[in-house]
Amino acid sequence: MSGDALSHIGPGRVVALCGGVGGAKLALGLYRLLGEDLSVVVNTGDDFEHLGLAISPDVDTVLYTLSERADKERGWGREAESWNFLGALSELGGETWFQLGDKDLALHVLRSAALARGESLSDIVASFAQHFGIKAKILPMSDDPIRTVVETPEGNLPFQRYFVEGRCEEEVIGVRFDGVDTACVSKPVIAALKAPDLRAIVICPSNPFLSIDPILATPGMQHLIRSAKAPVVAVSPLIGGAAVKGPTAKIMTELKVPATVQAIAVHYRGLIDGLVIDQADAAQREDLELPCSVSHTLMTTEEDRVRLAGEVLDFANKLALEAEAAPPRGAAS
Amino acid sequence: MSGDALSHIGPGRVVALCGGVGGAKLALGLYRLLGEDLSVVVNTGDDFEHLGLAISPDVDTVLYTLSERADKERGWGREAESWNFLGALSELGGETWFQLGDKDLALHVLRSAALARGESLSDIVASFAQHFGIKAKILPMSDDPIRTVVETPEGNLPFQRYFVEGRCEEEVIGVRFDGVDTACVSKPVIAALKAPDLRAIVICPSNPFLSIDPILATPGMQHLIRSAKAPVVAVSPLIGGAAVKGPTAKIMTELKVPATVQAIAVHYRGLIDGLVIDQADAAQREDLELPCSVSHTLMTTEEDRVRLAGEVLDFANKLALEAEAAPPRGAAS
Repeated sequence: MSGDALSHIGPGRVVALCGGVGGAKLALGLYRLLGEDLSVVVNTGDDFEHLGLAISPDVDTVLYTLSERADKERGWGREAESWNFLGALSELGGETWFQLGDKDLALHVLRSAALARGESLSDIVASFAQHFGIKAKILPMSDDPIRTVVETPEGNLPFQRYFVEGRCEEEVIGVRFDGVDTACVSKPVIAALKAPDLRAIVICPSNPFLSIDPILATPGMQHLIRSAKAPVVAVSPLIGGAAVKGPTAKIMTELKVPATVQAIAVHYRGLIDGLVIDQADAAQREDLELPCSVSHTLMTTEEDRVRLAGEVLDFANKLALEAEAAPPRGAAS
Repeated sequence: MSGDALSHIGPGRVVALCGGVGGAKLALGLYRLLGEDLSVVVNTGDDFEHLGLAISPDVDTVLYTLSERADKERGWGREAESWNFLGALSELGGETWFQLGDKDLALHVLRSAALARGESLSDIVASFAQHFGIKAKILPMSDDPIRTVVETPEGNLPFQRYFVEGRCEEEVIGVRFDGVDTACVSKPVIAALKAPDLRAIVICPSNPFLSIDPILATPGMQHLIRSAKAPVVAVSPLIGGAAVKGPTAKIMTELKVPATVQAIAVHYRGLIDGLVIDQADAAQREDLELPCSVSHTLMTTEEDRVRLAGEVLDFANKLALEAEAAPPRGAAS
């Protein structure tokens, strides 16, 4: 941790909202700066049951990333993974489109057994994080099942079928979150967002439509975020109108939304107090109707992640100071 | 396959009853001689749920043994196995007393998912056997859960807790089979035992109390065996009053039964037409009140297994010829 990064550490807690790989990179940067003062609220809309096992891809990516177990080359799953289970599964005619590594399976088997015993996903993930030595809190957005369904001209697809099996090739004409009507924000998420010493809420550069929207769609979540006495800062997932990885820009185009930081700002309008955009999109900053910070948002190295996390926290601090000097924020749209 | 072994092949089907490792060795010998004419009725009293997974140790041992996937050194599980799942499980605080290999897991995960979908264990195992290229029928004794419970002075233990976790160290004062009252013999087992061209029923040298008794305790099984128009031959699991492997002799002593082939004959009295004993126990043959064949029953090599299987089939053929020339067998005791 550089001396410069240390300057971003201040009193108070931070809540980050994130999905999988891209968002988890910034979460790691924040974790390096904040340690136990960080709570990561993770999308569970990608969760699904596969071969009878309860799989939580985004939660596990955050667990692996924050505990330095993530595979750095592949971008998902555990490092030094082996695939002997999958080979034996294939031999038996089992479905192999979703790649389950031998080590990775331990999370799925333990989670499935604990859920069947009636434990909450929050408690299960807290136990995993503790065993992995993670001091930050990793919080599933809800303990109730919410399932992202991608609507395409060919029909509806459960998220993983669209994302992994279909490689995001189908055209997205809509996204819906099954189960959301009867779901609640998990208790630890409520506690994190109501913490009296909350200093910032960060929306990580995950896919707004597929990874952040399920979090925001969870009943009560937006109210909790808006009611929090801390600035809300989003980091744009776009760099020069394109996504670093994944289908964000493709989906925005398919949903008739321009793949621009302005569209990201509109998407989060009423919820965020500021947007961090990449230098490649700096020309659009004048068009944004909210405070904006320009950074180098591509996170290739861990140093990049920590630097961006520090800049995001500085930006949030600045917004908080400005808010103190200004009239209260208006009601969210 | 030696020319000598080939001489044992005759018309008709054979049903073998067996448990795990020891019994599976003879089942392999029979399979080499009989191919698709062999049906193996396997003990499922050892089955248990572990980490939410449905595990059938004896069935899987037979699957691995007959498909040449069994680990020859260790005596259980798959060859060329890896243990990365177990390592990750340990890291997460999961139970590791029952060793689940990465490849082995594929059977448990697929079986659990299929059972949850409502498929029968018989159908599931038939699919596994087919994928493994096994031509013989591998038949769970029942599709209903029957669970062997070992009664000890310290209390009752589910079989795997006694056998694997406790390494058979507890004193056995009784054995019971939970669920047996409401269980039925599986349909494929009924069909195998009623086959018009059945030429022999072989009780493999598995533990009579822990591996064969659950099969015989399944309601209807003894009647089916006694009604079959084929000789029933058991192979003693004892060699010179000791078990080759496992707790057979220890349990017999604890149950106040002498560890002798005579006691084995008494145990199976009324059910079997003949007993195959080892040369080391030949001195006791005069004390046996039923036809007896003396063989070298230790199966170290595959050649041993095929040779013993051939001798068992020859003995059964001889008993069948004698029965044709003699009055019908009396009713079983």
